[in-house]
Amino acid sequence: MLQTITINTREHSEMIDITSLIDQEVSKSGIKDGICLLFVPHTTAGITINESADPSVRLDMQTVLGKLVPWKDSYRHLEGNSAAHIKSSIIGSSVMAIIESGRLKLGTWQGIFFCEFDGPRSRRLHMKLQ
Amino acid sequence: MLQTITINTREHSEMIDITSLIDQEVSKSGIKDGICLLFVPHTTAGITINESADPSVRLDMQTVLGKLVPWKDSYRHLEGNSAAHIKSSIIGSSVMAIIESGRLKLGTWQGIFFCEFDGPRSRRLHMKLQ
Amino acid sequence: MLQTITINTREHSEMIDITSLIDQEVSKSGIKDGICLLFVPHTTAGITINESADPSVRLDMQTVLGKLVPWKDSYRHLEGNSAAHIKSSIIGSSVMAIIESGRLKLGTWQGIFFCEFDGPRSRRLHMKLQ
Repeated sequence: MLQTITINTREHSEMIDITSLIDQEVSKSGIKDGICLLFVPHTTAGITINESADPSVRLDMQTVLGKLVPWKDSYRHLEGNSAAHIKSSIIGSSVMAIIESGRLKLGTWQGIFFCEFDGPRSRRLHMKLQ
Repeated sequence: MLQTITINTREHSEMIDITSLIDQEVSKSGIKDGICLLFVPHTTAGITINESADPSVRLDMQTVLGKLVPWKDSYRHLEGNSAAHIKSSIIGSSVMAIIESGRLKLGTWQGIFFCEFDGPRSRRLHMKLQ
Repeated sequence: MLQTITINTREHSEMIDITSLIDQEVSKSGIKDGICLLFVPHTTAGITINESADPSVRLDMQTVLGKLVPWKDSYRHLEGNSAAHIKSSIIGSSVMAIIESGRLKLGTWQGIFFCEFDGPRSRRLHMKLQ
């Protein structure tokens, strides 16, 4: 099962909680047990799994990533968004999750976050279940 | 095949070599060829594959991660462990490995490491083979 | 389907675009739909997906990684290549991609890059399709 989800980001840098969206799609697919590959087909965005309860965690993460990979630096890439590309490779462009009894098997505090590093943009996310 | 392994960490920051434990579980599963997804259901721990021969590599890695993401900083997350959350997303909360002839197919120097970033704690690790 | 590809790197630090090589191997495999796991069996190299159009992006990425994890520091690992090990875990030693209609399903600007962090060396890459 392969499908593509559209995600509209609103900020320049942002982590959007897509856990319930993905869980819903997994439920609808009818697949009871397997793995779920979430793949971001962009080079200035990423995806990660982290705490969903306190939104401060995402803010702290964006702040630290912004310090580690400053937006302005002596980059060669002329589009000016090298920082977004680099964050994308540090965080990663895909995550894997386990499907059990038709649901995502995440930890109590875990959520899935689409990471925008050069928005706002209309983004896509591929979901492959098997 | 899905199972959950318990890992008790002993330090605040630690990388525990779980290669032989995982290899044993793969053997017991009877699965000869496929992929092995190791998924950490926590938000202040991670998992990575790196050199197992010299334990200094893990110490150097923890030291560098500690410099890049300092434990004390102007974080907003009130629990005080934002650094552990951020390291978790940088290192990642899952790894994939190949199973061939009933064994993990790792490189000569590779081991699988459970990464504790806010311990000591009793942790879980999900293993999905298919 | 499991196979091993040899990659000869030429620089100390380098990101080699292997997209068409992998796409070719996926085509030859005859597998029409599934997932492709690319696994680096080394501890001082990695693999990532990022922009392939402008080679400057890779140069900027190597520059930033070199600043974040300096080659010379007070490392304990006596081989002197701790930085390469650490970059390997930050970038990751595997990527997953989706196969659709016998081809890799990547975004318009995406390419797959073998990341050499302590070359030049003769490297291997395992490709598992299922």
